[in-house]
Amino acid sequence: MKEQEFLQEVKEIELLNSALGLLEWDSQTGMPEAGSGFRGETVGYLSGMSFERSVGPKIQEALSYFDEHPDELSEVGLAVYKQVKEDYELNHSIPPERMQAYNTALTNAHAAWLKARKMKDFGQMKAEIQTIIDFLKEFIPYWKKEEATNYDVLLNQYEPELTVAKLDQIFAQVKTGIMEIRAVIAEKGTAPRTDFLSRKVTKEQQRKFVIGVAEQLGYDFSRGRLDDTVHPFMLDLNRNDARITTRWDETNFSMATFGVIHEAGHGIYEQSIDPKYDYTPLSTGASMGIHESQSLFNEIIIGSNKQFWEKQFPFFKECTEGTFDDITFADFYDSLKETKASLIRIEADSLTYPLHIIIRYEIEKLIFNEDISVDELPKIWNDKYEEYLGIRPENDLEGIVQDVHWSGGSFGYFPSYALGYMYAAQLRHAMENDVEINEVLASDDYSPIKNWLTEHIHQYGASRKPNRLIKDATGEELNPQYLIDYMKSVYYDVYKINE
Amino acid sequence: MKEQEFLQEVKEIELLNSALGLLEWDSQTGMPEAGSGFRGETVGYLSGMSFERSVGPKIQEALSYFDEHPDELSEVGLAVYKQVKEDYELNHSIPPERMQAYNTALTNAHAAWLKARKMKDFGQMKAEIQTIIDFLKEFIPYWKKEEATNYDVLLNQYEPELTVAKLDQIFAQVKTGIMEIRAVIAEKGTAPRTDFLSRKVTKEQQRKFVIGVAEQLGYDFSRGRLDDTVHPFMLDLNRNDARITTRWDETNFSMATFGVIHEAGHGIYEQSIDPKYDYTPLSTGASMGIHESQSLFNEIIIGSNKQFWEKQFPFFKECTEGTFDDITFADFYDSLKETKASLIRIEADSLTYPLHIIIRYEIEKLIFNEDISVDELPKIWNDKYEEYLGIRPENDLEGIVQDVHWSGGSFGYFPSYALGYMYAAQLRHAMENDVEINEVLASDDYSPIKNWLTEHIHQYGASRKPNRLIKDATGEELNPQYLIDYMKSVYYDVYKINE
Repeated sequence: MKEQEFLQEVKEIELLNSALGLLEWDSQTGMPEAGSGFRGETVGYLSGMSFERSVGPKIQEALSYFDEHPDELSEVGLAVYKQVKEDYELNHSIPPERMQAYNTALTNAHAAWLKARKMKDFGQMKAEIQTIIDFLKEFIPYWKKEEATNYDVLLNQYEPELTVAKLDQIFAQVKTGIMEIRAVIAEKGTAPRTDFLSRKVTKEQQRKFVIGVAEQLGYDFSRGRLDDTVHPFMLDLNRNDARITTRWDETNFSMATFGVIHEAGHGIYEQSIDPKYDYTPLSTGASMGIHESQSLFNEIIIGSNKQFWEKQFPFFKECTEGTFDDITFADFYDSLKETKASLIRIEADSLTYPLHIIIRYEIEKLIFNEDISVDELPKIWNDKYEEYLGIRPENDLEGIVQDVHWSGGSFGYFPSYALGYMYAAQLRHAMENDVEINEVLASDDYSPIKNWLTEHIHQYGASRKPNRLIKDATGEELNPQYLIDYMKSVYYDVYKINE
Repeated sequence: MKEQEFLQEVKEIELLNSALGLLEWDSQTGMPEAGSGFRGETVGYLSGMSFERSVGPKIQEALSYFDEHPDELSEVGLAVYKQVKEDYELNHSIPPERMQAYNTALTNAHAAWLKARKMKDFGQMKAEIQTIIDFLKEFIPYWKKEEATNYDVLLNQYEPELTVAKLDQIFAQVKTGIMEIRAVIAEKGTAPRTDFLSRKVTKEQQRKFVIGVAEQLGYDFSRGRLDDTVHPFMLDLNRNDARITTRWDETNFSMATFGVIHEAGHGIYEQSIDPKYDYTPLSTGASMGIHESQSLFNEIIIGSNKQFWEKQFPFFKECTEGTFDDITFADFYDSLKETKASLIRIEADSLTYPLHIIIRYEIEKLIFNEDISVDELPKIWNDKYEEYLGIRPENDLEGIVQDVHWSGGSFGYFPSYALGYMYAAQLRHAMENDVEINEVLASDDYSPIKNWLTEHIHQYGASRKPNRLIKDATGEELNPQYLIDYMKSVYYDVYKINE
């Protein structure tokens, strides 16, 4: 076995995956619905082929050969080998017929989720969620290495090397910090004016603005594109084809504005990975959490920055053709950073958002580490919302059935979003040593920020673990205090609180 | 070997091809150009896989088994077997390394063609075209069965069972007929007014109109979609996902109008194939010529019909918001059917179009049956344009380098376009026995026309050969007189000629 032969096998699997990527993108952006049955067959066939290849004899042979002869691998080859080995161990350990049964269960759970949403009733999907949980509990022993608890195993599939013990501490600190900020705001804050946020801004006006902003932030439209979709996402076929999508609301321009800024962050990451990782599983983000750190750097760090908005405001006014001529910049900026408790995660503001994640994290831990019954979940959910956010869902659509993740088997995923917040704030703090962020964002050239992120994060793709990336980039391990401090500075300013 | 196993193999090849279809559609409609290198790798890999499977051991085994046991096949299974066998014999006969070399030659020829267009000089692609011709001359003996001449072999790859001997006769008749009509028009005709055709019609206005018309004609947008592209086409991923594209010119609305009507005809064909052929190579058109007969039925039969346009004119005026309020219907209709000699095939009107094809046919025959040198081609081309159309290209871009076909190796393809004209006119003649075409096109319900075509053509997909389809549908073999008669009636009316 030669390195070249190994990399060729890896490349062919990546080529299959990139075809699957396009099939997925197309399904979400404009495939005629009537074609979905045929599409399902195509996707099923190609993904089956990709999976079989990824655990097939050629990969097995390569892994056992290079296990003995790692010295025959180049630097890139070795990094690829490590990643392929990790993926192999994750995928290969489950008996194929159980994996197939699990995939069927996921399909059923998705249908049940749609029904539960319609009926606003978790009861409609309870049995299917229980089945997913049972499968994962069956699989965890196959996946488990040295992790301390069952939930650690799931968590690590999205954020390698993170532990429940550590995350418990971190989330406790974040929770306390956010709740303190919220208490101060409630007591002494002056809420910003927000009435004009619902003024009509046409889709074309919004497009012009957000495309302009995304370009300035460094998203390269010649290596990507922006399409319409129901659920916004970024999907990369390769580093020269990293596509983003958004939805539009003509009476709520800020949704697409922050949405596109967010997805552009994901896209910039993919576009900036070192070409030496092309056609390998390293040509992607280091983890879900690190990926979110890049989209959230755009959305909550740059998107909360006053100099940034001061710079963009004239362009915004130009794009919106007079609609906001009577609004001062101060009012405009403050309106974007309103915070208030809400029941729906994806509509939450940047201060309360992490609380939504912590609630889900705590429930997932109860499920996998405490074996709590699914019957109890809606009440636990609602109680936690009442406790952390002071509001209680009136039905399950406002509550436990709002997210697609659990019916998709993605237990352990939610923490990534909050990690993204914390990483982003920590990266901002470190970046300040090298870049005058405020000055850059007030200028015509944002490239110093993108370049810093490329140098410290993007270029490595998935060749380094989150821990190492964050430590190398910031000089310390994950530290949630930067997020709390940043939120405090942003929201105390908006809410006119002088400490 | 069971039928089911055979059909499963066939299905998997079709699934690969449908993924390739989407990759192709995406490349033409909006893929970021920078992604083309990656895309080429994906397409190369998947098309290689599809080709290998199509000539692979499973297909070989199935073909030899069912060669002995055709009785074990269902009706559909037998039809699929015949098609797969034909394709296999076509594909398998060429040594793989020669086929690979040919594919490289095609890539080079395409690049040379682009250069030749830029330089307006056939000399820039002469050597590459010679290479393509040499390859095809090398391959013809592999492909040849009972065909009389070399060019018959190429012709049959696009139109099975058609012969040069027959086509020579047919084209002679068409040429004479068209040239007579042209002579009469030149002598006695009154040219229609056309100045208003260049009035500005926005893309959105055009979209509204042509989408409305395509829907009325029976193109099902819930099983298709319309996108923008440089070169218009229809591409079907399956019968529930048959996509069409167009280009727009705001000062020439008739281009997209007739373009979309044309592509919709291709799309309706694919959408109407019997579901029993799903996931088989029979779920497509019977031949290039039959496919064109459906697009051209829309474009030149319906698109030349006065009742159709009288019905659509109010809708057109509504969509164009007053731009044509001063134009009478008579002037509007006549303007759409102007005829004049032109050098560019894709811009030709429906009367002169077949002459462009006949010129190409005659040259292709010279190349493959008379071994004429490529050096002579530009002069022959220009002489023929002068002889048949009375105009002479001033450079090769207006002449021999205008088409992509030859650099793509598609010798033998051009006649399909003219066959489509003749089939369409012959189908119209036969349809009149069952359907009051003029009345239907004056009405709100065009379905009788679509249904007739589905009954006689669409439903069979590729399970029947062109000859049989046409004979069953019209009661006779291909007869070009219907085209000539139809053209005469349309153009003599427009040009106010009373015979």
